[in-house]
Amino acid sequence: MTMDHEQAFVTLATNDSYAKGAMVLGKSLRNHKTSKKLVVLIGPHVSDQSSSVLHKIYDEVKLVDVMDSGDTAHLAMMKRPDLGVTFTKLHCWTLTHYSKCVFMDADTLVLSNIDELFDREELSAAPDPGWPDCFNSGVFVFRPSNETYGKLLQYCTVHGSFDGGDQGVLNGFFCDWSTTDITKHLPFIYNMSSIAIYTYLPAFKQYGANAKVVHFLGQRKPWSYTYDPKQRRVRGEIQDATPHPSFLVDWWILYSSEVVPLLLRAYGDLPFHSG
Amino acid sequence: MTMDHEQAFVTLATNDSYAKGAMVLGKSLRNHKTSKKLVVLIGPHVSDQSSSVLHKIYDEVKLVDVMDSGDTAHLAMMKRPDLGVTFTKLHCWTLTHYSKCVFMDADTLVLSNIDELFDREELSAAPDPGWPDCFNSGVFVFRPSNETYGKLLQYCTVHGSFDGGDQGVLNGFFCDWSTTDITKHLPFIYNMSSIAIYTYLPAFKQYGANAKVVHFLGQRKPWSYTYDPKQRRVRGEIQDATPHPSFLVDWWILYSSEVVPLLLRAYGDLPFHSG
Ligand SMILES: O=c1ccn([C@@H]2O[C@H](COP(=O)(O)OP(=O)(O)O)[C@@H](O)[C@H]2O)c(=O)[nH]1
Ligand SMILES: O=c1ccn([C@@H]2O[C@H](COP(=O)(O)OP(=O)(O)O)[C@@H](O)[C@H]2O)c(=O)[nH]1
Ligand SMILES: [Mn+2]
Ligand SMILES: [Mn+2]
Repeated sequence: MTMDHEQAFVTLATNDSYAKGAMVLGKSLRNHKTSKKLVVLIGPHVSDQSSSVLHKIYDEVKLVDVMDSGDTAHLAMMKRPDLGVTFTKLHCWTLTHYSKCVFMDADTLVLSNIDELFDREELSAAPDPGWPDCFNSGVFVFRPSNETYGKLLQYCTVHGSFDGGDQGVLNGFFCDWSTTDITKHLPFIYNMSSIAIYTYLPAFKQYGANAKVVHFLGQRKPWSYTYDPKQRRVRGEIQDATPHPSFLVDWWILYSSEVVPLLLRAYGDLPFHSG
Repeated sequence: MTMDHEQAFVTLATNDSYAKGAMVLGKSLRNHKTSKKLVVLIGPHVSDQSSSVLHKIYDEVKLVDVMDSGDTAHLAMMKRPDLGVTFTKLHCWTLTHYSKCVFMDADTLVLSNIDELFDREELSAAPDPGWPDCFNSGVFVFRPSNETYGKLLQYCTVHGSFDGGDQGVLNGFFCDWSTTDITKHLPFIYNMSSIAIYTYLPAFKQYGANAKVVHFLGQRKPWSYTYDPKQRRVRGEIQDATPHPSFLVDWWILYSSEVVPLLLRAYGDLPFHSG
């Protein structure tokens, strides 16, 4: 039998901006009473203050410095310097003290308990709306394994990434995802991209109420907007005639009520901009 | 054993504009040497001239007039007048002199032989890029059956269509598509929406060369553009810095070289605008 403490949600933040995302994600997992461990991989550019806040929310905060590591990851990185963050993300396969994990991008927000994802096998993921025979690598189930880790680095070094990021590498490596096993297709509501609302609004109205994870993929991230707490509105958010729940506002409500207080305490007298 | 003549590609055109699309689609299937029959369903507003050209390309041209039919379709239509074209499309299930069919929207273009689609079972279709747990109803494998037809009309009348069209109805009716059988997921290259090029260009560059069917879904259809035959360019087409094969130009080359001559002959001395 698999014990809950052998399973973890894992995310990644290489800088203080993505660290804000990781804080909100961690809070959203806790608020929906996950029974799993929470792990965040951080890069060396994350400040001590951010790191201390992450320690308050996550069970494990692991510094991952590919450049320092002197192992195969370092070697791979020397050959493909363009794939920096990608190599850091692949590091999640080295978390071998867990038997199974769910990776989640730092720009995701959990809307209900999703512990049932651990019933799935590696590599389970939801389709990418841009090219739906690819899975989106913002949410995926995997089994930590040094062997798989080595093969992934090898694959990366030889083939690179067709999109320059981890999604291209992972789709190249797990290339039978679209044709082999339907149980490895997570429902889209476990990784609903915020833009899907606009591309096919009737489907969003039909199925979106069941969304469990929203993913703010693309250029603009929640923390790059400005929030007006009095009006509970995000400035510059796309608005349309049909009002629908604003996931951006949900993100900001959680950030300002549960994350900003922790950041203020961590920064003490140092200047800190809550966004 | 199933005989080829028991299988057919089926499309639909309710007016002369979509009929142009059906002509190009039919030509593209013939040029790639399909061994299957070609069937087009037409509505009562298709002109005699268009109909005569369709007869030259298709094995069977079937007039479908839901309003005239006096059967369950007519009744259903009385209750849901908003679903006019949808009811007409569902008529394809009544083609029971074929054991298996592949429906293709009139705004699709075939780029290579796709007879292997007949190895699939009902209901096989490719994911929709907007909401990828829905299938796109522009290309699908089905088994004509009066029983299924009746159930579909019944479903339509009771539940309507969540998107107002056939895609909403069919996804509601075949609601286990995304979770049950991976072999019913056609690869995206059998129904590649022309907009996918722009939403995830790296994936298009990686997989798009294998595209077998391109689907011009959305507001603007190939026949609504203006073509400059000398420059082999379509006016108003979105252009970007990275040049890629223009499927719009492919459509227009086929239309002007193989369809316009037939239309000119059909119209004789009557005015005809080739677009
Ligand atoms: O500078 C970066 C870029 C990315 N990431 C991590 O890598 C994930 C994937 O990147 P992103 O979400 O920006 O890509 P998108 O989902 O927009 O394609 C992020 O969510 C973070 O977890 C990071 O830590 N630092
Ligand atoms: O006025 C119409 C609208 C649609 N159609 C048929 O229904 C299909 C689906 O409509 P369309 O392709 O316009 O929808 P889209 O693929 O853009 O969602 C068309 O390809 C045609 O075969 C038709 O014959 N007449
Ligand atoms: Mn992301
Ligand atoms: Mn179409």
